[in-house]
Amino acid sequence: MISKFHKSHQKFLESAFAFNGAKHTTAFVKQWLKEQNEKVYVKVEKIPFSQLEKWEFRNGALRHESGKFFSIEGIQVETNWGPVLSWEQPIINQPEIGYLGFIVKEFNGVLHFLMQAKIEPGNINYVQLSPTIQATKSNYTRVHEGKSPLYLEYFVNTPPDEVWVDQLQSEQGARFLKKRNRNIIIHVNENIPEYENFIWLTLAQIKELAQFDNLVNMDTRTVISGITFGNFDVDSFMQSHQLSGIESALLKSACNNENELNSFDYILRFVTRHKAGYDISITSVALDKVKNWQQDAYKIHHAENKYFNVIAVRVEIGNREVVQWTQPMIEPAQEGICAFVCKEINGILHFAVQAKMECGNFDVIEFAPTVQCLTGNYNNENSLKTLPFLDYVLKADTKQIIFDTYQSEEGGRFYREQNRNVMVLAGDEIPVELPEHFIWMTLQQLQTFIRFNNYINVQARSLISAIRFKHES
Amino acid sequence: MISKFHKSHQKFLESAFAFNGAKHTTAFVKQWLKEQNEKVYVKVEKIPFSQLEKWEFRNGALRHESGKFFSIEGIQVETNWGPVLSWEQPIINQPEIGYLGFIVKEFNGVLHFLMQAKIEPGNINYVQLSPTIQATKSNYTRVHEGKSPLYLEYFVNTPPDEVWVDQLQSEQGARFLKKRNRNIIIHVNENIPEYENFIWLTLAQIKELAQFDNLVNMDTRTVISGITFGNFDVDSFMQSHQLSGIESALLKSACNNENELNSFDYILRFVTRHKAGYDISITSVALDKVKNWQQDAYKIHHAENKYFNVIAVRVEIGNREVVQWTQPMIEPAQEGICAFVCKEINGILHFAVQAKMECGNFDVIEFAPTVQCLTGNYNNENSLKTLPFLDYVLKADTKQIIFDTYQSEEGGRFYREQNRNVMVLAGDEIPVELPEHFIWMTLQQLQTFIRFNNYINVQARSLISAIRFKHES
Repeated sequence: MISKFHKSHQKFLESAFAFNGAKHTTAFVKQWLKEQNEKVYVKVEKIPFSQLEKWEFRNGALRHESGKFFSIEGIQVETNWGPVLSWEQPIINQPEIGYLGFIVKEFNGVLHFLMQAKIEPGNINYVQLSPTIQATKSNYTRVHEGKSPLYLEYFVNTPPDEVWVDQLQSEQGARFLKKRNRNIIIHVNENIPEYENFIWLTLAQIKELAQFDNLVNMDTRTVISGITFGNFDVDSFMQSHQLSGIESALLKSACNNENELNSFDYILRFVTRHKAGYDISITSVALDKVKNWQQDAYKIHHAENKYFNVIAVRVEIGNREVVQWTQPMIEPAQEGICAFVCKEINGILHFAVQAKMECGNFDVIEFAPTVQCLTGNYNNENSLKTLPFLDYVLKADTKQIIFDTYQSEEGGRFYREQNRNVMVLAGDEIPVELPEHFIWMTLQQLQTFIRFNNYINVQARSLISAIRFKHES
Repeated sequence: MISKFHKSHQKFLESAFAFNGAKHTTAFVKQWLKEQNEKVYVKVEKIPFSQLEKWEFRNGALRHESGKFFSIEGIQVETNWGPVLSWEQPIINQPEIGYLGFIVKEFNGVLHFLMQAKIEPGNINYVQLSPTIQATKSNYTRVHEGKSPLYLEYFVNTPPDEVWVDQLQSEQGARFLKKRNRNIIIHVNENIPEYENFIWLTLAQIKELAQFDNLVNMDTRTVISGITFGNFDVDSFMQSHQLSGIESALLKSACNNENELNSFDYILRFVTRHKAGYDISITSVALDKVKNWQQDAYKIHHAENKYFNVIAVRVEIGNREVVQWTQPMIEPAQEGICAFVCKEINGILHFAVQAKMECGNFDVIEFAPTVQCLTGNYNNENSLKTLPFLDYVLKADTKQIIFDTYQSEEGGRFYREQNRNVMVLAGDEIPVELPEHFIWMTLQQLQTFIRFNNYINVQARSLISAIRFKHES
């Protein structure tokens, strides 16, 4: 009932299979991206907090003097979830909703996405493929005041029926306090200017590029994850496209609504049970009083150097509006891993999803990948013993790996943070019975939850975005 | 995809049509309820705050000395929604999730709901039909400590597949700060004791009783509103049950998923647009400093005696565990009205639903009835001029009225608060084009949102619960 066919569905589906008909070859895009990277001047250096300009420690937090952008605050967390029931930590508070938007348009009958080669200071490789627009709500709603981002006018003036995706999605719940972004895709028919460092790609190409390390940025990945194809005759589509193997199994899991192990209502009741059974209470703590965290001239760090550091950087960038600025960033203490384990059950691919409490979640729990280790060194004896599926994923045979890449977190806040994104196809060695807090879902069930906001966390969405239904041959 | 058939669906559907096969006649139930009311001793009197026992004004709020139950606090509200952008008011803060649960069981093959004739001090007529259990989370999760409510063990021990409804639903957003209750229906096969003042009713009987004033309490109404029937062959069902008229149109709207004016995705985008476009910020204010509110010995009231009063009462009740106690309550300043206007569009009944911001909402906006006036005297020139559909509903012809009753708010918190619940069938005089913030939905679309929690507000759910698909002949 909620998956009726919309004109967008078929266009998205065709674009997910379109290498022929694309404006550019994928090889060209990779070369173009490399050139974008080379021609830009970027310098990011760590500085002491005392050299931050326009940022200051005030009222127990690290804030911009305007009160805008974001702040780094301290929180105390109390919960009845998991082995650790109480802790304190710094967190990013950014109440303003961010807007992540794509313009899509047909060329040669094939839907293309307008992407930007965007520099973000935190990115390992600086330039990655980002949505057409990344704007703040202030940008978005007050379009006529001040300088506005490129293409903003298209988003503001789109008639409702040409808005093909419009969702409010969460960011990292362990790092952001209830932050949400608006994920939008709008469709245009008219000709629109193609500014320098913008390029039109098909959905198949974006998914193809997501098979490589750090080319497709987090903002792109979250928007792409919200695309659905509606109900259609999957079997005849698969036949006519000669699909087979894992890609056909994934498409079937995305579009088939038969033979799910757990009904959607059953999963909803699973959610309610978790939200009703677990509490989380957050209270404010002055940043310099956060227990077990220490501050020196250059960073705020955990006493055991775990989790992450708050640092300060000076950024000089060539093709940005503001050429030089300073800002706080979050630097991970180590690399993390996110993985989905999937398995065929009742003839359809199911994903092992976990209900996960993170302190910044909007509503207690969200669904996370099978494995999500971002906040500690995962490859150690204790993690391997206590975290379900971690050992299994790390030892998975190459033949079971659907993809295994490094992907960057949002480069405006996170300093050189990349995490392994892995998807593993399990066989009989993984039983249908799952540990507590885990539940099997089809890809269609996952994507239905995505449409309702704040059910599927950003790590899971990042993995989902990289699922391709056709590889470039 | 989210409405697959579950064994519960057919049982619920049959029960919604079952007058024959019910354990008791509806006439008997009404007489029984009257007797329950007569045999109980109830005395509720207003007292000055100074006579409250175990309640005190502390840290800027009216609190229980244990820190439990609830507190009355002051808040300042800032928003960009509506004509009033900033105000202060008292509000109920009750962070603990309440549990509202029904046990259902077949007798003679017909599903019956175990209902309690429950006294609530705020009820106009004291005793109303309530769910099997109304418990706090503390009751529910710590079953072996202290005295626990009747039937609690059934809820705690039910296997997941016998939990037929499990939802987290909101309460009044203008009165409660982000309060949610868990709405549960569990199914049992075994014989269970039928304690005094409990009675088994079919769903048809509950809906029939909801056509009368103040017999079915708010907790029952919210749980009942979450019942769905899955996908089945509505047309043949309607033929075999010889349904026609408004009742058949309502069943079709509840079960048909064709010909909706707005696709579900379109409505979801409408939600996102509202949540992204409007903000609400709540800050704490000491209760005795709330702007435009005054306190005397007996009440905290608005300077113009609008909205509601916070009062204190002494309660003496015959058949309660605690026979005498005092507590704060909320007394409405006047009677309110909630109404759905529905209309046939594309051959299917659609409801005019409004996106409504209320300061205590969990997530900015929820969907509310076409008309919701609870916080001011609605029958005045200004309201009639500015509130869409109010004048239309008040002047509706008798022939257009589907139901028109008074229903009580929750009698544990609200003192003698009853509001008119009206449903009106509109004709051509109401155009398909709706005012800003309004959208047409079928009953099935409304009920799909109910299953996802915090989308449909309690006033809308109250109206939905009273929709019957068969009247007693």
